[in-house]
Amino acid sequence: MEKQSIKLGLMGFGTVGTGVVRIISAHQDDLQKQTGLGIEITKILVQDAEKSRNIAAMENLLTTEPAELLDDPDIEVIVEVIGGIHPAKEYILQALERGKHVVTANKDLMALHGAEILNKAQEKGCDVFYEASVAGGIPILRALVEGFSSDRITKMMGIVNGTTNYILTKMSQEGADYSDVLKEAQALGYAEANPTSDVEGFDAARKMAILATLGFRVPMKLEDVDVKGISAVSKQDIAYGKQLGYEIKLLGLARRDEEAIEVSVQPTMVPKSHPLASVNGVFNAVYVHGEAVGETMFYGPGAGELPTATAVVSDLVTVVKNRKLGVNGRGMVAPYKEKVLKDDSQKLSKYFLRIVVADKRGVLAKITQLLADKNISLEQVIQQPYNNGGEAEIIMVTHQSSKSDMDGVIAYMEQMDIISKVESCYRVEGGDK
Amino acid sequence: MEKQSIKLGLMGFGTVGTGVVRIISAHQDDLQKQTGLGIEITKILVQDAEKSRNIAAMENLLTTEPAELLDDPDIEVIVEVIGGIHPAKEYILQALERGKHVVTANKDLMALHGAEILNKAQEKGCDVFYEASVAGGIPILRALVEGFSSDRITKMMGIVNGTTNYILTKMSQEGADYSDVLKEAQALGYAEANPTSDVEGFDAARKMAILATLGFRVPMKLEDVDVKGISAVSKQDIAYGKQLGYEIKLLGLARRDEEAIEVSVQPTMVPKSHPLASVNGVFNAVYVHGEAVGETMFYGPGAGELPTATAVVSDLVTVVKNRKLGVNGRGMVAPYKEKVLKDDSQKLSKYFLRIVVADKRGVLAKITQLLADKNISLEQVIQQPYNNGGEAEIIMVTHQSSKSDMDGVIAYMEQMDIISKVESCYRVEGGDK
Repeated sequence: MEKQSIKLGLMGFGTVGTGVVRIISAHQDDLQKQTGLGIEITKILVQDAEKSRNIAAMENLLTTEPAELLDDPDIEVIVEVIGGIHPAKEYILQALERGKHVVTANKDLMALHGAEILNKAQEKGCDVFYEASVAGGIPILRALVEGFSSDRITKMMGIVNGTTNYILTKMSQEGADYSDVLKEAQALGYAEANPTSDVEGFDAARKMAILATLGFRVPMKLEDVDVKGISAVSKQDIAYGKQLGYEIKLLGLARRDEEAIEVSVQPTMVPKSHPLASVNGVFNAVYVHGEAVGETMFYGPGAGELPTATAVVSDLVTVVKNRKLGVNGRGMVAPYKEKVLKDDSQKLSKYFLRIVVADKRGVLAKITQLLADKNISLEQVIQQPYNNGGEAEIIMVTHQSSKSDMDGVIAYMEQMDIISKVESCYRVEGGDK
Repeated sequence: MEKQSIKLGLMGFGTVGTGVVRIISAHQDDLQKQTGLGIEITKILVQDAEKSRNIAAMENLLTTEPAELLDDPDIEVIVEVIGGIHPAKEYILQALERGKHVVTANKDLMALHGAEILNKAQEKGCDVFYEASVAGGIPILRALVEGFSSDRITKMMGIVNGTTNYILTKMSQEGADYSDVLKEAQALGYAEANPTSDVEGFDAARKMAILATLGFRVPMKLEDVDVKGISAVSKQDIAYGKQLGYEIKLLGLARRDEEAIEVSVQPTMVPKSHPLASVNGVFNAVYVHGEAVGETMFYGPGAGELPTATAVVSDLVTVVKNRKLGVNGRGMVAPYKEKVLKDDSQKLSKYFLRIVVADKRGVLAKITQLLADKNISLEQVIQQPYNNGGEAEIIMVTHQSSKSDMDGVIAYMEQMDIISKVESCYRVEGGDK
């Protein structure tokens, strides 16, 4: 009996693409046992077919012509690991148009054009899976869609960008400056030459838009996510945070209260006792709180050749199983809830605030009075001399306050004579549900 | 148009059963949106229909007659949350025989008779899902079967019993004795009046047999699991462990080297820096190491009404989706690898050893010589006076050694004149992959 296999076109042959090839070659037997079909890579789309690669015996599959994959009727599945919006989007839409299933690791594309792609897939009866787009090797999308299908998720907190977590971990462990650690991360290949997308939080924001869409079953867009990066985080902030029992993490927060939702990415103080506080280096983690299940957390590598490729090939296994059962394109549930976004008065949080003030009697009293007038009460306060220059530094952790109240207080503070500078303001999360 | 729904018979109406009813009632709309079908509980099997319950409006569904569920052709799914082997096993087999799908939270049954049940399901084209049987609210079985379908798992380490983790956490945090904490746990309802199944590790062993079967794709049986409970763990062991940088956890370990497998449950020293070391109280966690994905960890509530019920109802959602697609009973992959168990010479680990010796010159030298003769070298040693009685206590952490070598050393030590007592010996895990 001839061994049957499903034919696959791979688009992109960089780090993740190489991993996909490796895993499919090494695990052919396991994949066959699980799906009843072999998986055969028949073409690989590359930019430069002459480039030397550290993976052998694939030269004859390389092409620079997308049509060789898209127009080949024998290719049933396209794996897209090119990244970026164009031309990945056009390729994927054309593949779906021709009835090919798609597995992608492309977070940018799914965050920005996910709805369009999923609609096209539904129209054409095709599968589109994208587990690898969020938190690399952690099967978090499956957990949200299937594992918690019976629950109502109220909160997700994610450390979903390895580069920034590496930088913040190093800054925390070594008391080092942001710029020095960034340079080191670039030298090690953990940060790109142009690190903006990572350090300004845009990469994490894309992942949070995907998580919020699936977790809350609401069509979230990237522009619904408030974003602030880590480039202004100082070693002083980290040191004071530690003194008060916190670690700073670039935290994606997606939270639902009743039907109103907020999604943000920002440097956030997390209590050391919280499981997210000890997620270090390039590791990722997603904390999920559901009404019924309570607290859960998923931890693992957020990137890397093999972890990401594992997620891609596991999605591929699902496509092949669905093909065998004849149910491709029929398992997806579109986001069915209406999107209601919180306004700033509904975004509640504790805050960490660091300000520099004139070192005079009564200053602290004036500041606490100002906060009290805005209904903000304090949980912790440290005051101490600053720079030996007749100034003092006040570090405060507030009780729950709204973003609008806190923004109002900061705007007011910036105009007060007795305050030289509002050094920093961070949300504090993870102390309660 | 009449609203279509799928009819469900619930067997067992204790903690988890009540949770299942609550979740199905509260989330009817979400379930309908996801599956396209309502879920209707039409009968509930109880032992005593007259017992008062804290959930209203269900009295008319109660029956003490299993046949009322099993013989009802309108009931398409049985949810079994009675627990124990008999009569749950008979009910489930009869349900499958009549073509009903089954969702169960029954770890005892799945660990002991899982193969028989799954075979019957396959024969009859029925679904059997049991996510709730391991680590309550954590969707770990899905992660193993689907999320890591493309990877080869090499190691799973699980804190999968909340009672023992609560006891060990308390002992560690308060320096308390085992027996005192056990009494407290019983008073709080975290431990049963007869705690044997939990504290002697049998409950955890059942869960590890299920995890190993799914993770390694090998038909593991309960008797393949080496089991040792926590009743002999002393506060001294915990204190010395801490001094050397470890926490003691009742750790389920399933490990594959090449094709040879070992599965055990035993009190184990885990380095404080390992994510498992900070899993405290009744929480559960499963650490999974895959060849490609590397390190991942899944953390959450291991038990409780709603977390467990969430897992049950999420399985139910899968059954209903499968029913809608017409693919019930066709998605399962039977364990397809041959079982090869390690012998004791292949079970490698570091060990923590605490012995009481005569406080004479040369004793430590003799003991290290004995270990060296058995090819066991030491990583850390502490020697100190013991009980002011002319004796000394030696605490050692070894480098990697085989179980057979270590067992041999301990048997020899127990006969040596200079050694009064071998107080304790624990595996040390989590320091490397």
